[in-house]
Amino acid sequence: MSEPLGVAVLGAGRMGADHIRRLDRVVSGARVAAVGDPDRDRAEEAAAGIDGVSVHTEAEAALDAPGVAAVLIASPGPAHEEALLAAFARGLPVLCEKPMVPDAAGALRVVEAEARLGRRLAQIGFMRRYDTEYRRLKALLDSGRLGRPLMLHCTHRNVSSPPGFTSAMLVDSSVSHEIDAARWLLGQEPAAVTVLRPRSTARAPEGLLDPQFVLLETEEGVLVDVEILVNSGFGYQVRCEAVCEAGSARIGEDRAMVVTTSGAASEEVPQDYLVRFAGAYDREVQEWVDATRRGEVTGPGTWDGYAASATAEAGVRSQRTGARTTVELAPRPPLFA
Amino acid sequence: MSEPLGVAVLGAGRMGADHIRRLDRVVSGARVAAVGDPDRDRAEEAAAGIDGVSVHTEAEAALDAPGVAAVLIASPGPAHEEALLAAFARGLPVLCEKPMVPDAAGALRVVEAEARLGRRLAQIGFMRRYDTEYRRLKALLDSGRLGRPLMLHCTHRNVSSPPGFTSAMLVDSSVSHEIDAARWLLGQEPAAVTVLRPRSTARAPEGLLDPQFVLLETEEGVLVDVEILVNSGFGYQVRCEAVCEAGSARIGEDRAMVVTTSGAASEEVPQDYLVRFAGAYDREVQEWVDATRRGEVTGPGTWDGYAASATAEAGVRSQRTGARTTVELAPRPPLFA
Amino acid sequence: MSEPLGVAVLGAGRMGADHIRRLDRVVSGARVAAVGDPDRDRAEEAAAGIDGVSVHTEAEAALDAPGVAAVLIASPGPAHEEALLAAFARGLPVLCEKPMVPDAAGALRVVEAEARLGRRLAQIGFMRRYDTEYRRLKALLDSGRLGRPLMLHCTHRNVSSPPGFTSAMLVDSSVSHEIDAARWLLGQEPAAVTVLRPRSTARAPEGLLDPQFVLLETEEGVLVDVEILVNSGFGYQVRCEAVCEAGSARIGEDRAMVVTTSGAASEEVPQDYLVRFAGAYDREVQEWVDATRRGEVTGPGTWDGYAASATAEAGVRSQRTGARTTVELAPRPPLFA
Amino acid sequence: MSEPLGVAVLGAGRMGADHIRRLDRVVSGARVAAVGDPDRDRAEEAAAGIDGVSVHTEAEAALDAPGVAAVLIASPGPAHEEALLAAFARGLPVLCEKPMVPDAAGALRVVEAEARLGRRLAQIGFMRRYDTEYRRLKALLDSGRLGRPLMLHCTHRNVSSPPGFTSAMLVDSSVSHEIDAARWLLGQEPAAVTVLRPRSTARAPEGLLDPQFVLLETEEGVLVDVEILVNSGFGYQVRCEAVCEAGSARIGEDRAMVVTTSGAASEEVPQDYLVRFAGAYDREVQEWVDATRRGEVTGPGTWDGYAASATAEAGVRSQRTGARTTVELAPRPPLFA
Repeated sequence: MSEPLGVAVLGAGRMGADHIRRLDRVVSGARVAAVGDPDRDRAEEAAAGIDGVSVHTEAEAALDAPGVAAVLIASPGPAHEEALLAAFARGLPVLCEKPMVPDAAGALRVVEAEARLGRRLAQIGFMRRYDTEYRRLKALLDSGRLGRPLMLHCTHRNVSSPPGFTSAMLVDSSVSHEIDAARWLLGQEPAAVTVLRPRSTARAPEGLLDPQFVLLETEEGVLVDVEILVNSGFGYQVRCEAVCEAGSARIGEDRAMVVTTSGAASEEVPQDYLVRFAGAYDREVQEWVDATRRGEVTGPGTWDGYAASATAEAGVRSQRTGARTTVELAPRPPLFA
Repeated sequence: MSEPLGVAVLGAGRMGADHIRRLDRVVSGARVAAVGDPDRDRAEEAAAGIDGVSVHTEAEAALDAPGVAAVLIASPGPAHEEALLAAFARGLPVLCEKPMVPDAAGALRVVEAEARLGRRLAQIGFMRRYDTEYRRLKALLDSGRLGRPLMLHCTHRNVSSPPGFTSAMLVDSSVSHEIDAARWLLGQEPAAVTVLRPRSTARAPEGLLDPQFVLLETEEGVLVDVEILVNSGFGYQVRCEAVCEAGSARIGEDRAMVVTTSGAASEEVPQDYLVRFAGAYDREVQEWVDATRRGEVTGPGTWDGYAASATAEAGVRSQRTGARTTVELAPRPPLFA
Repeated sequence: MSEPLGVAVLGAGRMGADHIRRLDRVVSGARVAAVGDPDRDRAEEAAAGIDGVSVHTEAEAALDAPGVAAVLIASPGPAHEEALLAAFARGLPVLCEKPMVPDAAGALRVVEAEARLGRRLAQIGFMRRYDTEYRRLKALLDSGRLGRPLMLHCTHRNVSSPPGFTSAMLVDSSVSHEIDAARWLLGQEPAAVTVLRPRSTARAPEGLLDPQFVLLETEEGVLVDVEILVNSGFGYQVRCEAVCEAGSARIGEDRAMVVTTSGAASEEVPQDYLVRFAGAYDREVQEWVDATRRGEVTGPGTWDGYAASATAEAGVRSQRTGARTTVELAPRPPLFA
Repeated sequence: MSEPLGVAVLGAGRMGADHIRRLDRVVSGARVAAVGDPDRDRAEEAAAGIDGVSVHTEAEAALDAPGVAAVLIASPGPAHEEALLAAFARGLPVLCEKPMVPDAAGALRVVEAEARLGRRLAQIGFMRRYDTEYRRLKALLDSGRLGRPLMLHCTHRNVSSPPGFTSAMLVDSSVSHEIDAARWLLGQEPAAVTVLRPRSTARAPEGLLDPQFVLLETEEGVLVDVEILVNSGFGYQVRCEAVCEAGSARIGEDRAMVVTTSGAASEEVPQDYLVRFAGAYDREVQEWVDATRRGEVTGPGTWDGYAASATAEAGVRSQRTGARTTVELAPRPPLFA
């Protein structure tokens, strides 16, 4: 194999540091060429011990550092738009963590910028598309063996929410994974969204609406329901059942090891997405590196980032009003057909 | 044990004949004393070979037959109100198949008639309360081990709908089981109901809205969602997951026998409620016989029958309008407190 | 239905009392006509509240009591031979708890006595044949869908052994269930048995060999292995996997309710055979009552009781010597062909 | 990270080519520096497109090629001894596929050669130790939570055996995985082995004894039973249940996706070890590369290769004689303490 791909990583927080480790020690064919973070100490710590890496406090300086041939954006969401446009300006392939851009208007500007370039450069970090189980479900649905899908039932539970997590974030940060997964599994855009608010768990911080129950209706009438419960206390659980005309299929029921002790047969429930989706992150980055070295973009793109943001925005409006809210998407540029 | 309980069975159709067989050959302490059905041939066929049974084409004649000490009503729903009132007039204990009375107004008249009697005589055939798995779930919720319930996710699938099954019947005949089960499991009355209509399966007869997705909100803010799909093609599946503040519990996932053949490990899926709930019907009737012989009424009563009818009626309105519909219940008579 | 079957129950201990309750209150078409137990107080306690029952301290007196048309033997094993012969002498149908007769020589005398009668009167209480899961497995094997069986893997675990339980009893009391189940499922007689002795659990009383691992080889070369562990501490588990030429099938993996709490998804494990096999006992006695009233014997017979005893005896010899021991069965009388 | 580790791969058959792909495209921190195979065309095909690789028909030439800092041996078993000794002579770290050396005598010579070196250089390819589920089981056993192990029940099934597969190979090629896994999980050496021969499946080629049932007894009295069935027809299944004093734990029951279609709920069964253990191979090689770059040997060593060969040899003798056969191991050199 030829030269490894030199990657500039923007953001050296928890997610960025994990991607730096992945590019340096797990993934084949890539190396970390630059790290950019406004907090120089954090950037240097994340880059420690890596040969030939440079450290920067300005994102643009990191993109211009020697050896940089691609960008991985893991900075906070509000910094994404500027970083994506800077990468586009330099013709650099990008892997951008989700949310691509927190608001739909900004996300649309990124879509339009890439459309003006006339070629795809960006992949968005919807990593469920790289999970083995989701891929089997997608392959099964695409095979037509189960007939047309009618409904998706989704469960998304975290052990507890981080400080500062708001009621809106249950929809635009957590459920955005299901929004993308549903669009991808079904090959359909959302047409309307309704957010219901059951009574909140005593585990939730004061004022946080948790759980919520989100209903997506697609343009072709498939109904997607999502339980989001971010203070479950009991585990990280992501499940999906596709109900189709000729059968149903469920994922997320893995039984890695069954332990029987006095009175109970039990399986461990993962406590963290880094456990449940560890393989998916590795695969996402490896496939991005491989495709980038071949000069291709194969993963979810900016249109997918925009559609997720626009749907989540409608969801947050529904959460406030309690009413069914239609999802209005801009016309899809031909580049993303 | 003393004299067996002489039971008059009204209705000798599929369900009535099955109850006659059960009273005659499965249940201890009861005997079939009379069978009433407008179709005399059908009544005689169902009563064939049973010692000391009389056959009638008039319900009242069956109630007045010698040896009758209790009544089991398995006639079509529209005949129930009159039969219940006749039993009350005679002071006879009754087990009445669901729906108690198809419309809420008629159901309320039965509640009021029993309230006027001043003592409980009727048990309604919500047989899920007698299923082992539902009982374990109820016991777990009542124990408080899982904390307060927040949501119930329910699945109810049939292989195919019988001729003449209407869109309204998905709610008032099928989902009425979940309405009662939710009231019983939670100990709360429904406050509102919304019925969503995903695209219909190609397996459904022309014009039937199938599947539907029913959302119940209880007076205390618990959200109950029910997938009802009566032309699944693949099996009879009844599942329920209770999501609570300290954990979740699921029933309906039984794995009786796992068969591995080329490429697949599979379990048989029951095709019929008589398979899935065979034990529950036996237990329901045995417990009714036992309680009746002790002079007690222990099962779900006419208030439960009325509440289910009233909620289903609101659901059918929501199905037509697409809007969330509040459930208005009459005041509960002290007899049913 | 005609007159209920009057049954004399011999033995009013734990098992006998449970059968008395079953005949009186669960099973249809039978009544307890007499109870016989050397301990009159125990017999009277078990018979309390039952109409028309007589109580006896002598087994023969119970058989001769008014209204007795059949016998259920639930006395200790050493009393079985005499009770069976007394029933045969009176031409009374019998349901006899296992072990039919503890030693193979005595068991063979019972077989020969019944053969001399020239008609079958006795059914032996191998209740696994009445368990729904075992029946599905038997039906699947008989269907030929999985091809010829090659191996059976069996697990048999108790929470703890009762006082006085000996190393030999792991084979001749516990594993005798698997011996009969294997003979029935396969339709083959055992040809040899080997008993291995892994190190014993610290939970076992001093000197008890627990667990043991029993290997049965059938006359046609099927290998049956049985883990018997009577002081597991964690539950009552009975599992069986049949490995065949075209697939395998497993029973005993039921998941009645899955509860997820902090860090674990778990199912309750039954602690007792009366939980796991409650339905099987009810079905066994109901089918025996029904067949007896029709004048038939449909269940496992004295030949099955003998074959199980002879195999278990060979197993106990192997347990002592550590060597593979052949099973020598007497010629099978034509009555049991 | 510093310079990638240059690896010489010996053997460019199915397994060798897969390891070349893995080192080139999956694993981080390594590169393929040389490929050696007597079949030059095959070697060149496997090396195609890799920068800086040299191709050799002699193993020693490959070891001496420029850039080689470590060796991965994937040639046929009979070539392993010579290749290992050549690597030792050059002080090169080695990852050697199993069987390390097919016969115990040759395996012992390798152990002794490494012991004479006075430092560990070789890791043997027992890749189950790198499977996530086996690791969880090992961690659980080591934690002491389940008390002392008493028995391991193992199942090992292939869809069909390759041409030329012999009855001995069921033990020394297939079951050798379980021999190593049992030694590793239990931390105990085998003391005796017995191989039983149930009737053979009609799917097996003429003359092949398939299935077989292998019993290992460890020095401390733990009993390990292994079903090996290499012509199951239905799937690749590897399961293990550890029965301990305070509970049991099972692995190999994964449910990646459950599909319900008409009458059955089923999961796909993998057909191939490359599916079931794909992650384990990647992890094995990544951990070997990482440890080698740190100058360490962390995996199973030559002593483990020898112990597996010696146990398998005793098993093959037992297979012929039908008798229990003791396992005699040479004294363990201090290097492997």
